[in-house]
Amino acid sequence: LSHFTMQTVTLIPGDGIGPEISTAVMKIFEAAKAPIQWEERNVTAIQGPGGKWMIPPDAKESMDKNKMGLKGPLKTPIAAGHPSMNLLLRKTFDLYANVRPCMSIEGYKTPYTDVDLVTIRENTEGEYSGIEHIIVDGVVQSIKLITETASKRIAEYAFEYARNNQRTSVTAVHKANIMRMSDGLFLRKCREVAENYKDVKFREMYLDTVCLNMVQDPTQFDVLVMPNLYGDILSDLCAGLIGGLGVTPSGNIGANGVAIFESVHGTAPDIAGLDMANPTALLLSAVMMLRHMGLHAYADKIQIACFDTIKDKKVLTGDLGGKSKCSEFTGEICRRVQDME
Amino acid sequence: LSHFTMQTVTLIPGDGIGPEISTAVMKIFEAAKAPIQWEERNVTAIQGPGGKWMIPPDAKESMDKNKMGLKGPLKTPIAAGHPSMNLLLRKTFDLYANVRPCMSIEGYKTPYTDVDLVTIRENTEGEYSGIEHIIVDGVVQSIKLITETASKRIAEYAFEYARNNQRTSVTAVHKANIMRMSDGLFLRKCREVAENYKDVKFREMYLDTVCLNMVQDPTQFDVLVMPNLYGDILSDLCAGLIGGLGVTPSGNIGANGVAIFESVHGTAPDIAGLDMANPTALLLSAVMMLRHMGLHAYADKIQIACFDTIKDKKVLTGDLGGKSKCSEFTGEICRRVQDME
Ligand SMILES: CC(C)[C@H](C(=O)O)[C@@H](O)C(=O)O
Ligand SMILES: CC(C)[C@H](C(=O)O)[C@@H](O)C(=O)O
Repeated sequence: LSHFTMQTVTLIPGDGIGPEISTAVMKIFEAAKAPIQWEERNVTAIQGPGGKWMIPPDAKESMDKNKMGLKGPLKTPIAAGHPSMNLLLRKTFDLYANVRPCMSIEGYKTPYTDVDLVTIRENTEGEYSGIEHIIVDGVVQSIKLITETASKRIAEYAFEYARNNQRTSVTAVHKANIMRMSDGLFLRKCREVAENYKDVKFREMYLDTVCLNMVQDPTQFDVLVMPNLYGDILSDLCAGLIGGLGVTPSGNIGANGVAIFESVHGTAPDIAGLDMANPTALLLSAVMMLRHMGLHAYADKIQIACFDTIKDKKVLTGDLGGKSKCSEFTGEICRRVQDME
Repeated sequence: LSHFTMQTVTLIPGDGIGPEISTAVMKIFEAAKAPIQWEERNVTAIQGPGGKWMIPPDAKESMDKNKMGLKGPLKTPIAAGHPSMNLLLRKTFDLYANVRPCMSIEGYKTPYTDVDLVTIRENTEGEYSGIEHIIVDGVVQSIKLITETASKRIAEYAFEYARNNQRTSVTAVHKANIMRMSDGLFLRKCREVAENYKDVKFREMYLDTVCLNMVQDPTQFDVLVMPNLYGDILSDLCAGLIGGLGVTPSGNIGANGVAIFESVHGTAPDIAGLDMANPTALLLSAVMMLRHMGLHAYADKIQIACFDTIKDKKVLTGDLGGKSKCSEFTGEICRRVQDME
């Protein structure tokens, strides 16, 4: 495995439990001898000229240079007018595709088995445009913006992803029966792109129908592609099927190789610093990152060690049903990684 | 039970399996001696002056007079510009609250038990405003409209419902972190109304978080209130938890006592006329209607007979896992209703 050159990744440890789970990931990467070196950057929004919120220049420069980032949870700012840091990052680097694989984890019991699907969410527009007005007193409108460019781009991403990851179908999720023009445009683009991927089965389904079918039998889904808000909803629903945000990885993909992988759970301030946090979501996000960088052998090794640790049930953090500390869980994964040499 | 005066209800049998499941409901109501007489009306949209789509005058008059309706599935029109009949009905009679109770059915196995919740959906505005524009070529906007009046009205409905049905909590479902003004207004109204219902616990939760928690443990929810689209999604998700749209009732409630109860499944054209359809969703909707009319004893009787038939597993339609015909299933419920005399 030693022929890979070292690559630098921007590490945004984040708030609350962010630093401890980041340390866990770094330790496991070290044990796996993954050819990654970390450039740590703090991300707290600062106000630029004209009061515009932006991420700190040194974090921006680091990402611009490395193109690859790993990020822990960031606390939601409470100042009025302050944007969500997650959204600000997605916007700053035009991370247009939010990719969340959901796979049942052996040994971690939920009502479902054999879930194996991927939600691909358009990450830049739709209901997240941020355009809202008061029409008259007591009447507010929010604008959902759908463009041909962004719809085509995300549809192409989904089909490329399906093809490159040996997936068999892509389901476009929409409400074009209600939002005929906007979701209609999104759906049309998906249909057009599907024409170029005859090797991948294309399906389309209403969002409500997807939700209903998803809780009845998630194994009928493979890759799903959808506008922003629907992705927010479905990705969380699917995470719930396999055990929640503590075990679900996520990646935000942009153009020209830029990407930030992140755990999407909260900062858990109540247990921060107590060595109790579960690093699985961030670790699996880091594994996704390795795959995205073509470092599959390292990704496999770490993923197997993580899943084996969970399946084995002996060394688990509290949320996974065990009594071990974050550092012990991390140590166990490291041990398994090293045993694989 | 004989001191109730006969009341007339408009019956819209609907398309596909609509007529047979309507017949089933009528038979069971007759067996229960429910003091209801039916006024059957066909609903197919017609075009009025200026090409405006409207429901036929005789159906409108019947509803205006009776105020109470029961409706089977209506096929989705395919003509361009033709509105959904369901939406047209909600609009015509200003049926502002869509109420869907979801209760686990004993004997009908799903991954969940003890589900007992009610989704209350704002039924008139939000993403269903139908206002959309092409801004420039390839850029479309849909407008989500939230008003103080409609938000307050639905919040009040939810709290009244909770109080009158011995429910303990109301959860407002929103994305006010993203749609700060529109969902913000909705949420603010819910908070204000909650102040007047100190006997009911008030909670608020992001839609994505609700979806995640719902599939992990639906028993933590009681009454949920939300804007239109979120209700469309959540009500289907919840229906999935207890067995799907074939067993889930629904009511559309308006002002001044107007209401239409409906099964929300499709018309199932493939099995229409074959005596194979499952009338449960329409029957339970009719039971909701009886409760709404204050006819609780009849409602209880029919509901018990229906649930006992399912629990007993001997006479079930195909979708419920049995081999019986719709008429046999109906006959079994009638028998049980009569046995209760
Ligand atoms: C934190 C929040 C703004 C975000 C969203 O709504 O997209 C989150 O729910 C997510 O899914 O990443
Ligand atoms: C038929 C359709 C227009 C409708 C909706 O989207 O509201 C349906 O899904 C529902 O929930 O009643």
